[in-house]
Amino acid sequence: MINPREIIQKKRDRQPLTSQEITDFIRGYMSSEVADYHVAAWLMAVYINGMEVDETLALTRAMRDSGRPLNLSTIKAKKVDKHSTGGVGDKTSMIVAPIAAACGVTVPMITGRALGHTGGTLDKLESIQGFNPRPSVEKTMAILKSVGAVIMGQTDDLAPADRRIYALRDVTATVECVPLITASILSKKFSEDLDGLVLDVKTGSGAFMPTLKEARALARSIVDVGRGMKTKIVVLITDMEQPLGRAIGNALEIRECIEFLNGNAPEDLKNISIALAAHMIRLGGRTKSIAEAEGMAYDAVSKGIAAEKFRKMIRSQGGDERVVENPDLLPRAGSTDEFRAPSHGFVTRCDAKFLGLASNALGAGRTHVDDSVDRAVGLFLEKKSGDPVKRGDVLCRIHWNDSQRLRRAMAFIDQAFEIKPRPPKIRPLIHDVLEG
Amino acid sequence: MINPREIIQKKRDRQPLTSQEITDFIRGYMSSEVADYHVAAWLMAVYINGMEVDETLALTRAMRDSGRPLNLSTIKAKKVDKHSTGGVGDKTSMIVAPIAAACGVTVPMITGRALGHTGGTLDKLESIQGFNPRPSVEKTMAILKSVGAVIMGQTDDLAPADRRIYALRDVTATVECVPLITASILSKKFSEDLDGLVLDVKTGSGAFMPTLKEARALARSIVDVGRGMKTKIVVLITDMEQPLGRAIGNALEIRECIEFLNGNAPEDLKNISIALAAHMIRLGGRTKSIAEAEGMAYDAVSKGIAAEKFRKMIRSQGGDERVVENPDLLPRAGSTDEFRAPSHGFVTRCDAKFLGLASNALGAGRTHVDDSVDRAVGLFLEKKSGDPVKRGDVLCRIHWNDSQRLRRAMAFIDQAFEIKPRPPKIRPLIHDVLEG
Repeated sequence: MINPREIIQKKRDRQPLTSQEITDFIRGYMSSEVADYHVAAWLMAVYINGMEVDETLALTRAMRDSGRPLNLSTIKAKKVDKHSTGGVGDKTSMIVAPIAAACGVTVPMITGRALGHTGGTLDKLESIQGFNPRPSVEKTMAILKSVGAVIMGQTDDLAPADRRIYALRDVTATVECVPLITASILSKKFSEDLDGLVLDVKTGSGAFMPTLKEARALARSIVDVGRGMKTKIVVLITDMEQPLGRAIGNALEIRECIEFLNGNAPEDLKNISIALAAHMIRLGGRTKSIAEAEGMAYDAVSKGIAAEKFRKMIRSQGGDERVVENPDLLPRAGSTDEFRAPSHGFVTRCDAKFLGLASNALGAGRTHVDDSVDRAVGLFLEKKSGDPVKRGDVLCRIHWNDSQRLRRAMAFIDQAFEIKPRPPKIRPLIHDVLEG
Repeated sequence: MINPREIIQKKRDRQPLTSQEITDFIRGYMSSEVADYHVAAWLMAVYINGMEVDETLALTRAMRDSGRPLNLSTIKAKKVDKHSTGGVGDKTSMIVAPIAAACGVTVPMITGRALGHTGGTLDKLESIQGFNPRPSVEKTMAILKSVGAVIMGQTDDLAPADRRIYALRDVTATVECVPLITASILSKKFSEDLDGLVLDVKTGSGAFMPTLKEARALARSIVDVGRGMKTKIVVLITDMEQPLGRAIGNALEIRECIEFLNGNAPEDLKNISIALAAHMIRLGGRTKSIAEAEGMAYDAVSKGIAAEKFRKMIRSQGGDERVVENPDLLPRAGSTDEFRAPSHGFVTRCDAKFLGLASNALGAGRTHVDDSVDRAVGLFLEKKSGDPVKRGDVLCRIHWNDSQRLRRAMAFIDQAFEIKPRPPKIRPLIHDVLEG
């Protein structure tokens, strides 16, 4: 018999919980012996008092075991996924999955939708006519064997405890909590039968962990739990002070991915994508050194193999593969407007959070899970932090469909940019790399 | 529009809540805009991060205002109540209400039932054949005007938010929390339209606040909120390391009350009862000095006026008033047993909590709110802490009806007593008196 009050009380009193207690608590929640109010009180105690690595590990396992993990044992190649904590303009998933697959790594990528000011990979991919984010298990296996990469949405079978707990965290102000974030991410990722995982923890104004200190704490927690699960994890802490690349918004970002895979990439997006792909290639056992893995990743792009993988993945998931040659087939907004520099100088701020909110305001994101998404709208940054500008230069182009929404977006864009006489201090793109 | 997440978040981050926020939160809870899980997370944040006096005051008010307070404005005499945080053998309510009424104070006493190891005044009074703990509002007014004292159970109208919140605290391990206890007690007491309140905060093994430090914190919080409510409150911190008086158990305690009112009282019960009654008499404006008030209380007992008030109160609430002359009319257990001293020496421990649990085990209390209560069973202490004993002396008599229950009770009694060669350090009966 589980006694939820005793488990809550221990955590309240800063006593570590045993694995058995955590397992019983989560099982009890899924079987309704433990109520929402029990879990809500417990989450707040965890938020304030924290959890030790062993507790986070037990929670991750219990949440994973609430569902039926994928079984990819018939696939002989190494399975590696990449996951990001969420950012603005972060379209690396659609880039690194084909690159890694082109280099012989199998990528069973399960991803999410836009929420808050950040974009969602599934929403972006659904800009492609016909793209099916929910292939059957049989179809998934077939795609992984023939193409080597699939990007799909979470199914009800995968870590259902995470969905229930996340919904509760969302309404009880217990989202921003390192052990809970760790268990949420890893319970899903460990349901994918992976050999390795590359995690991109964002830091900066547009990240859920704005400070480097918080990002490091999350990265450390993820690496520790990965070690406990005996799964190789590499965590990159990357910058999200300004958006990644130039495009923000679903179809606009798919277009930027296609241009990337066709060899035309903004520097920041290229550097982070190649680094992430290289770590995937190495974890996938294709090389021992990161330098060599980076070379393989570059080659996969420059020789067009990655673009070909992307095309095959789109086709096998029912999407219109012709977009890879002709991105104009993607949805396009009815109107565009420019936002121009009010003065001479340097762009000293190009704020990821405000630009994410602006894109959301245009209709590219969601405020509530059931909001509909406008695939066509978004922003394209002509200037980014550090760029010199003259008064009247276009800072960004706004792709819009609704003038009321445009007005709301403009207010955010106005706050996003700052122009000063001197260039800003340069922030590193990759702040740190941790490995278990 | 109330946003419960923001209110939870503020408390999570140790920011004080405004009165308006607390009012909205409690109102929202009663109107179902705020869910159990919101309140559960908030209670845990309050438990860990605490509340300031102004917040506790706002919570007390909001909980009081969730119901319909009594309106006693047609009664011209001062209304004063006494409340205890709960103890073992604590039958002072049945003693001080008639004494205070005998001295011209009106006592609209609303009280509760046994829960945990402590007894409940209503359960005790219901040992008296026919006693009605739920007189109508009209009847209550009539009794208060004619007798001057009524002891009754809480109605659904009084601070219903407290009942819902208490039930949630009980299952979420957030009971033992000074601001929440303060608001729980005072929201009900301030629903009684009082001019003054005497609060008996127990400390020691049998109390909910075992340490003097905790008891003082609660006393201070109660006095502070009382000042904010502009109601005179006196808090006595009294000892509950051993039971009060000699009787534990419903009918046995009523018998001890009657003996007290007839002039035959154990020293500790007398001292605390007279002190509590004296503070009630003073708050009720009958005298300026405590010494004088104590004299009045003694007189009320020795002249039989208090006993007469008790008889009238019983009669007016439908009970068999003859018990005041003939306590043998009270329920009596089928059997008695003795628990004897295993060695020579002094009683150094006569533990309130274990004796409370023993009485409970016999059937005198409740483990769950809907358990039935055996009015006849209980304990009578022949020796208490500090008493010299010879081996074989009776330490306590056990009044029982069920041999299985007797066995369970014996295990507790065995742990309750300790006999050593030297007498124990004497603890004060009244540790402190605080006044707003």
